[in-house]
Amino acid sequence: MKQQASRSILPLDASATKFDVVGIGNAIVDIIATCDDEFLKQHDLPKGHMQLINTEQAEALYQAMGPGIESSGGSAANTMAGLASLGGRAAFIGKVADDQLGEVFRHDLTAAGVSYETAPTAGASGKPTARCLILVTPDGERTMNTYLGASVELGNGEVSQETIAAAGITYLEGYLFDPPEAKAAFFEAARMAADAGRKVALSLSDGFCVDRHRAAFRSLIKGGVDILFANEEEICSLYETTDFDEACRQVSNECRLAALTRGAKGSVIVFEGEMIPVAAEPVSKVVDTTGAGDLYAAGFLYGLTRQLDLETSARLGGLAAAEIISHMGARPAVSLAKLVEDSGLLAA
Amino acid sequence: MKQQASRSILPLDASATKFDVVGIGNAIVDIIATCDDEFLKQHDLPKGHMQLINTEQAEALYQAMGPGIESSGGSAANTMAGLASLGGRAAFIGKVADDQLGEVFRHDLTAAGVSYETAPTAGASGKPTARCLILVTPDGERTMNTYLGASVELGNGEVSQETIAAAGITYLEGYLFDPPEAKAAFFEAARMAADAGRKVALSLSDGFCVDRHRAAFRSLIKGGVDILFANEEEICSLYETTDFDEACRQVSNECRLAALTRGAKGSVIVFEGEMIPVAAEPVSKVVDTTGAGDLYAAGFLYGLTRQLDLETSARLGGLAAAEIISHMGARPAVSLAKLVEDSGLLAA
Repeated sequence: MKQQASRSILPLDASATKFDVVGIGNAIVDIIATCDDEFLKQHDLPKGHMQLINTEQAEALYQAMGPGIESSGGSAANTMAGLASLGGRAAFIGKVADDQLGEVFRHDLTAAGVSYETAPTAGASGKPTARCLILVTPDGERTMNTYLGASVELGNGEVSQETIAAAGITYLEGYLFDPPEAKAAFFEAARMAADAGRKVALSLSDGFCVDRHRAAFRSLIKGGVDILFANEEEICSLYETTDFDEACRQVSNECRLAALTRGAKGSVIVFEGEMIPVAAEPVSKVVDTTGAGDLYAAGFLYGLTRQLDLETSARLGGLAAAEIISHMGARPAVSLAKLVEDSGLLAA
Repeated sequence: MKQQASRSILPLDASATKFDVVGIGNAIVDIIATCDDEFLKQHDLPKGHMQLINTEQAEALYQAMGPGIESSGGSAANTMAGLASLGGRAAFIGKVADDQLGEVFRHDLTAAGVSYETAPTAGASGKPTARCLILVTPDGERTMNTYLGASVELGNGEVSQETIAAAGITYLEGYLFDPPEAKAAFFEAARMAADAGRKVALSLSDGFCVDRHRAAFRSLIKGGVDILFANEEEICSLYETTDFDEACRQVSNECRLAALTRGAKGSVIVFEGEMIPVAAEPVSKVVDTTGAGDLYAAGFLYGLTRQLDLETSARLGGLAAAEIISHMGARPAVSLAKLVEDSGLLAA
C-alpha cells in the first residue's frame, strides 16, 4: 500500500470513528432515458447541467421522455455507495418519503453497505420521494432535471452531533443549498464536524448551482471546508473566470486541499499551493456520465481515509469514475474493491 | 424485402386491423440485481426459472438481495415493447395498481409506442403493482421471483371484444395461467380472437409454468393456438420428454406453426410438419438473458405480420433477442428498427 510519506495532510484516526465518511445530500431516485440533442432543445433543457423542476414540469417532462430505467441516485448518496463498494465505512443522511421509490432508495443504499438511519417523511399527506429525470444523449452526456419532493424536508433535526462526530469526514453536496431547510442543516453539520475535530468536505455539484449560491459557497470554503471537490466548470464559475489555472490559483489561497476534475483530461489536486495533475483512467466507451464526479469523490476520499498519497487517491477517484461512466446509472455495477485490486494500483 | 413466396402461412390483412398484435400478460416492474450462484443456493432459488413468491417472501428476498435497478418488464409487455420498437403496431392488456411502480410501467410502455388502455386497480386499498425480483448470475442467466400483486386483478372485464378484434394476432403469455382470474381472461381472449377471425399466439413462458398447467396448455394448443412460442426446456416439459426432436415431432402434430428457441443454438421453426433450423445471432457478451424469449417473439411476430418468410422472421427474432441479452433489463435499449436496418437483414 502506498502510504503517505507525511501523514499530516489530513490527520484521520480511523480507530476513533465508526465511519470514514458521512454524506449529507438529497435522497433521489434517478429515472434515466436516452434522447437525442434535438429533444433537449425542444424542451429547453440545459445540456450537461442540473436544473430544478416543479411537480407540473416533472409530469410534463416524464410524459414526453422515452422509456426509462430507475436507479437510486443523489450526489452524496452515490459517493457513499462508491465509498462502501471500495471497502470504506460510509453513512448517509437524506430524506425520502414513505413510498415505493423511497423504499427503493433505502434498499439500494443499505444493500450497498451504507448506514442509513434517516426516517422517511410521513407518506400519504406529503411530497413523494425526490426523482431526477436524466436524459442521456448519444455522446454519453447527461442532462438532469430534479424534482426535489420529500428531500426538501431534510432539516436540522436529522443531522445529529452523534453521527457527525462518528465520522472522520462529513461530506456535503452543494445541491443541498437549494432547499432552504437543507442549507441550514448543511451549515449545522459543518459546525458540528468542526466542533468534534472532524473534517468537512464539500462538492460544488453543478455550475448553475454555483451561480445560485456563489457568495455562500465562497464564504463556507474560506471558513470551514477542508477538502473541496469541483469540476472545471464549477471552479471557474466559483471564481468567475474562464481560466482554469487562474481558478486553481484562487482556490489555493482559500482552501488547503481541492480535487478538481477535468473529464477526459483527468484531475488536478491543489494542496497547499501546489498543483498535482493526475491523468484520467482510459474508458473504451462513455455510456452515461451520470455520477462521474460523485464516484471520483468516493475514490479520492477512500484514498485519504486510508492515508494514501494524494496522487494515488486521485487515481482511485479516476478508476471509480471510469467504472460509473461505462454503464447507465450512478451506482457501481461491480465491486469497486475488486476493480481496485485487479488494477494493481495499491500493489506494493 | 423478403416476402413470403406463398402468403398463406398466416393470412393477415394489416389494413383491416388497428394493431398488428395485442399482448395480454402480467404487468410487472423488474427489480434487477446481480448475485453469485451461492446466493441462489442459500435462498433456494431455482436458477434460470420463474417462481411465484408471496408478500413475505418478496420482502425477505428484497431485503437480502443487493442494490438493483428497476426496469419495466412482464413477458408479453416486453414482447409488445419490442414489436413497437421494430415498427409494429402493438397494444397491451394487463393490470397495474395506482402507485409509483404502476406509473413507471405505464410510462415505459406507452413511451415505447404501445397502446395501453387498461385502467389501474384502485390504489390505497388493494395490492401494489407486481414486481419481479430478478437475480442475474455472472454467466448472464436470470432467476426470477415474481410477486404478482395487482396483476392478479386482471379479469374478463379488461379484455374487450373490440380490442381483440382490432388486432391481427392476440399474443398470450403462459404466466397468465397462474392467477385464476387472468386464466379465465386468457380463454375469453382466445375465444374472442377466433370469433373475430384473428390469430392466437401463445408463449409457454417457463418450464415450471408448463409443469403447473400442462394439460390446460395442451388442450389449448390443440384447440385454438395458431402460433406457439417455447424454448427447448418448455417444449420438452410440455410433452414430458428429454428429446427435443421428439418434442418437435409431437408439436408438429398438434400445432401448425411453432417457433422453438434453443439459446445459443438458435431456433427451430416447425411449420406443417417441416422443421426449419435457424442460427442464432452472435453476441459478444451475454450480460442478462432476461427477456430473450420475449424479444425473439417480438421479432418473429413482426416478420409474420409483415408477410416475411419464416426464416427471416426467425432471424429478426434472433436479432432482437441478441440486443436484449447484451444489457440489463428486458426492454430494448436502442431502436430495434434501426438495428434491423443496420443489419441488412431486410435488404432486397
